[in-house]
Amino acid sequence: MLPRPTGLVTLLTDFGSHDPYVGVMKGALLRASSKAQIVDVAHELPPQDLDAAAFFVGALRGRFPTGTVHAVVVDPGVGTSRSLLAVAADDCYWLAPDNGVLTPVLAGERGPIDVRALDLEALGLAPESCTFHGRDVLAPVAAWLATGRFGFSALGPRAREPVVRAADPRPRVVHVDRYGNLITNVTAAGFAAARGVAIGTRRIARQRTYADVAAGELLAYVGSFGLVEVAQNGGSAAAALAVGRGASIELWSA
Amino acid sequence: MLPRPTGLVTLLTDFGSHDPYVGVMKGALLRASSKAQIVDVAHELPPQDLDAAAFFVGALRGRFPTGTVHAVVVDPGVGTSRSLLAVAADDCYWLAPDNGVLTPVLAGERGPIDVRALDLEALGLAPESCTFHGRDVLAPVAAWLATGRFGFSALGPRAREPVVRAADPRPRVVHVDRYGNLITNVTAAGFAAARGVAIGTRRIARQRTYADVAAGELLAYVGSFGLVEVAQNGGSAAAALAVGRGASIELWSA
Amino acid sequence: MLPRPTGLVTLLTDFGSHDPYVGVMKGALLRASSKAQIVDVAHELPPQDLDAAAFFVGALRGRFPTGTVHAVVVDPGVGTSRSLLAVAADDCYWLAPDNGVLTPVLAGERGPIDVRALDLEALGLAPESCTFHGRDVLAPVAAWLATGRFGFSALGPRAREPVVRAADPRPRVVHVDRYGNLITNVTAAGFAAARGVAIGTRRIARQRTYADVAAGELLAYVGSFGLVEVAQNGGSAAAALAVGRGASIELWSA
Repeated sequence: MLPRPTGLVTLLTDFGSHDPYVGVMKGALLRASSKAQIVDVAHELPPQDLDAAAFFVGALRGRFPTGTVHAVVVDPGVGTSRSLLAVAADDCYWLAPDNGVLTPVLAGERGPIDVRALDLEALGLAPESCTFHGRDVLAPVAAWLATGRFGFSALGPRAREPVVRAADPRPRVVHVDRYGNLITNVTAAGFAAARGVAIGTRRIARQRTYADVAAGELLAYVGSFGLVEVAQNGGSAAAALAVGRGASIELWSA
Repeated sequence: MLPRPTGLVTLLTDFGSHDPYVGVMKGALLRASSKAQIVDVAHELPPQDLDAAAFFVGALRGRFPTGTVHAVVVDPGVGTSRSLLAVAADDCYWLAPDNGVLTPVLAGERGPIDVRALDLEALGLAPESCTFHGRDVLAPVAAWLATGRFGFSALGPRAREPVVRAADPRPRVVHVDRYGNLITNVTAAGFAAARGVAIGTRRIARQRTYADVAAGELLAYVGSFGLVEVAQNGGSAAAALAVGRGASIELWSA
Repeated sequence: MLPRPTGLVTLLTDFGSHDPYVGVMKGALLRASSKAQIVDVAHELPPQDLDAAAFFVGALRGRFPTGTVHAVVVDPGVGTSRSLLAVAADDCYWLAPDNGVLTPVLAGERGPIDVRALDLEALGLAPESCTFHGRDVLAPVAAWLATGRFGFSALGPRAREPVVRAADPRPRVVHVDRYGNLITNVTAAGFAAARGVAIGTRRIARQRTYADVAAGELLAYVGSFGLVEVAQNGGSAAAALAVGRGASIELWSA
């Protein structure tokens, strides 16, 4: 069953904060419906970085009220024939270019309920530009879906083969946060039997939280994303280990 | 006729994100009216850069709901005798110091409907500080105008000669965006007969969108601001051409 | 008497803008109550910098509507046994880890009305993670307090000795803003008899505002925080004087 929209629209983009794009997209959204309630998630995604965007999408799953509309704009293919998608999954709606940024909700264990390719003609949309579909398409569609002007199934026909980014099964660092914590793609379930993480020649023992080790010591733990992280108590694991996103890790079960 | 305010107030400032100024201004706005609905446009305008602010103001024209109040705070002259302006133009309201940041709405082809110099005494305002009129004046006035406590014409007497920044008619790059796209001051109309853009010795042919050229190639096109832009498909034109804001361009019509 | 909550919740964190933490915390807040109205104050506090956070807290005092709930998340001790506090002070509510970030409202001249240590069990909260109490505790408690699900005194027992950061009485620079203005810990009252400020061998005379000196000249004045600042008209005092946060100053009364 489709969740009931609540008016809430989140924005996740790679627009940064030095250009008018965020403001202009908000304006387009509010022009489509002044009742939409906009929540900024982040606008500092690395430009055109589909993996980073997909990591954020995974982090948002299950974290907002049922019926929230998430608009994700990282769109290196704007102006090509790529579709724009609307996905109903995880009790929320997701709007984004069909370029794989929605992989976590499309390929997740709970899977999508329904996936649509936006039908611009049926929606009465004639994009003003070839280079800013966030403003010209996703903003009004997000507002209309969130406030009930269009139901989900009126947004377009079912999309048969939405782009899903190939899962790299190799355990690795998928995000480095502001504090220098290394967030991996290993889930709590995958970590159940492990005693820790090995990065290069370093073995880092599993703990519950930072305070379980002395200041300056490294630890591995299940972090707030439900994923294994490596941190340094009171410091930056990324700096201490000189590793970044993409670095291989191993689980240490001996 | 004056547009009807809707409660919506946008904020465009050069306050950055490392100081309490944005938060404190929002507080002042909500203290003046808790019904005001605040929308962050941008706070990372280059400090005290009137041209950058004016570019953003131009980009916002026509992009928000009718009756929106736009508060623009880039104010190198705070504490001098410069006025603060309220402008009704482009179906919206604009509040800013009288320093030229509102040039696009004052000098635009549609022109302003009405321009007022804020009368602090009539508004019952005695600024608490000499250095933060964004908080002490523009915030409450924005809230009052947006929520109907004061009508536009009660804000002050007509301003006779608001500051307008001299238009530099020379075709040039007026903004470089996060993706390295070069945004020029050439309008779509001015580009109608052109085959492309020349920057230095490089000729860049006109296209419709990025995907019309191979990866790594340069293109000129009418972008989402309605202005001519130069981009590199899959890269940064600013880096590829080693040019920035202010660089001269020529139209290539041969 | 306790102020009446209005639904307004401000967020002040050190999460930065490159991680999902801000978005995920907003989601948790809205899941707890979709009627909460979120206002971003700042998310770029220097990571785990308790003094910087306390400076912002001081700057917010008295600046928001009565009954606003301020959630402050700078939490180097997350996962230790430190408490989480709720404070009623300055006509508002303040939620934060018990690590001294609330010093200005706890030790201020008006003092707190009441200080509580959150009782997670009584609130029905079992934090999902050991490392993100902003999401798992402070977000729902902020929403519940702001929208009336829990009254202040139901949040937990009185806290006897909340952490207060030792006041360093030495006159000094406590914040450098984006414009290079040096904000000191000297209040307007403390400056009443002074003719200016001395930094190293430089004497900087007291003025009312920037425009009272020629471009490029330094000045001392009571700034918008009610604290003495040192600025350079049209430039950066921090650059001109080569001083930063923590630098000693002297009042010059001769």
